[in-house]
Amino acid sequence: MESLFILKIGGKVIDEEVKLREALEAFLAQEGHKILIHGGGKKATEVSQRLGIPAQMVNGRRITDTAALEVVTMVYAGLSNKIIVSMLQSMNCNAIGMSGADANAILAHKRVVEDIDYGFAGDIDAVNVSAVQTLLEGNLTPVFCAITHDGKGQLLNTNADTIATQLAIAMSEKYKVSLNFCFEKPGVLMDPNDDRSVIPQINVDSYQKYKSEGVISDGMIPKLDNAFDALARGVSEVRIADVAGILEGKGTLLEKM
Amino acid sequence: MESLFILKIGGKVIDEEVKLREALEAFLAQEGHKILIHGGGKKATEVSQRLGIPAQMVNGRRITDTAALEVVTMVYAGLSNKIIVSMLQSMNCNAIGMSGADANAILAHKRVVEDIDYGFAGDIDAVNVSAVQTLLEGNLTPVFCAITHDGKGQLLNTNADTIATQLAIAMSEKYKVSLNFCFEKPGVLMDPNDDRSVIPQINVDSYQKYKSEGVISDGMIPKLDNAFDALARGVSEVRIADVAGILEGKGTLLEKM
Repeated sequence: MESLFILKIGGKVIDEEVKLREALEAFLAQEGHKILIHGGGKKATEVSQRLGIPAQMVNGRRITDTAALEVVTMVYAGLSNKIIVSMLQSMNCNAIGMSGADANAILAHKRVVEDIDYGFAGDIDAVNVSAVQTLLEGNLTPVFCAITHDGKGQLLNTNADTIATQLAIAMSEKYKVSLNFCFEKPGVLMDPNDDRSVIPQINVDSYQKYKSEGVISDGMIPKLDNAFDALARGVSEVRIADVAGILEGKGTLLEKM
Repeated sequence: MESLFILKIGGKVIDEEVKLREALEAFLAQEGHKILIHGGGKKATEVSQRLGIPAQMVNGRRITDTAALEVVTMVYAGLSNKIIVSMLQSMNCNAIGMSGADANAILAHKRVVEDIDYGFAGDIDAVNVSAVQTLLEGNLTPVFCAITHDGKGQLLNTNADTIATQLAIAMSEKYKVSLNFCFEKPGVLMDPNDDRSVIPQINVDSYQKYKSEGVISDGMIPKLDNAFDALARGVSEVRIADVAGILEGKGTLLEKM
């Protein structure tokens, strides 16, 4: 099986050109087939504010109404995606920008309304493995933004971490997949206030222990739950690190056992 | 040689969903490989106004400054492109949205400053025929917006008619290309005020005659000059028509001789 390196870069990495370039260099330093997934960054918020579109919040959760969907489609699929693609092209990487609608790569459905109607938020149903494979085998490097579609003409706003995870799981059918989350911290920390306290490896057992002891909590739990789910469903390795950790293969490595 | 149908749809077709759907239906009614190119429509102007970005004009020509480039990248490559791609997907066409940066499909340079600095306006240098061919042979239907890049990380605003023409010329190397311009008029008219006065065929000789007689003038001349240039450089046929004319193979057909 050929290897496939999947990297998700988050908001703060995208917002500064120097950091973005470093992240793209760390991405390009990897061998074999590669896929990049990017979040939105501050630009969508800035454009919304300048357009006078108020953020719709319910119980502290952001709602994607029609106006908000327009903004994220413009900023994620348009501006951020094409800036990254043109930067990669200038670094000799034959990148191709993608939303889930392009090549029908990621099919989703509008999140079912239970307590809250999240609007045009998409939950993923399927990844079109053969379409993504066609691009990879054409020596192209897909760059995914966090927009999907429902196959009926509706675009949907979808969490970038989830896109990275679902792509990794689906592509494991054909490739040995390494899934990497790049964020501002050097890894999963024992002490959130001490960047030197990176936990180098976590397996399912030690994860349960850290959780029960309260070492790992808050925002890190859904990230790690998703990551362990990816490992259980065929992904070879998951790494959580900052840009330097991605480049050097450091940070926190999640292991099956 | 396999056939390749290239259709450019303009601003007014894009602005109304009903018209856009009709144009996409006329596009999908064609057999064989297909490429769609779309202009911008009113949305870019509307977003610019709402963002408080004034249109920069010099001698009646629009200038693409940094702020304007951001808007067209958002609207053309983001919103318009993804709306069209998701609509085509809902119509069972495996569309893939493209700018010139994606797959390094269209390389351009910033227009050389002579009398006027047009800002980030791109003049096309090269079409990556093999990249576009890879997509077509992967049964994908490329949908190009009017954004290109210079290969050094700079995105550029490029005329959609020119993109369609240059794509048609370059792809003629591998395919029997039909180049089609869809606009609001039923074809090239003898009398601009009479939609029934369509000239069904024009060749180089009759074109010169119509020009010298003043029958064809103004905005139609650069369009037809480009079209005859395309015919001279390998494109099999060029058609100028409205949506119904594209569907039925009517409008004005340009002939080599």
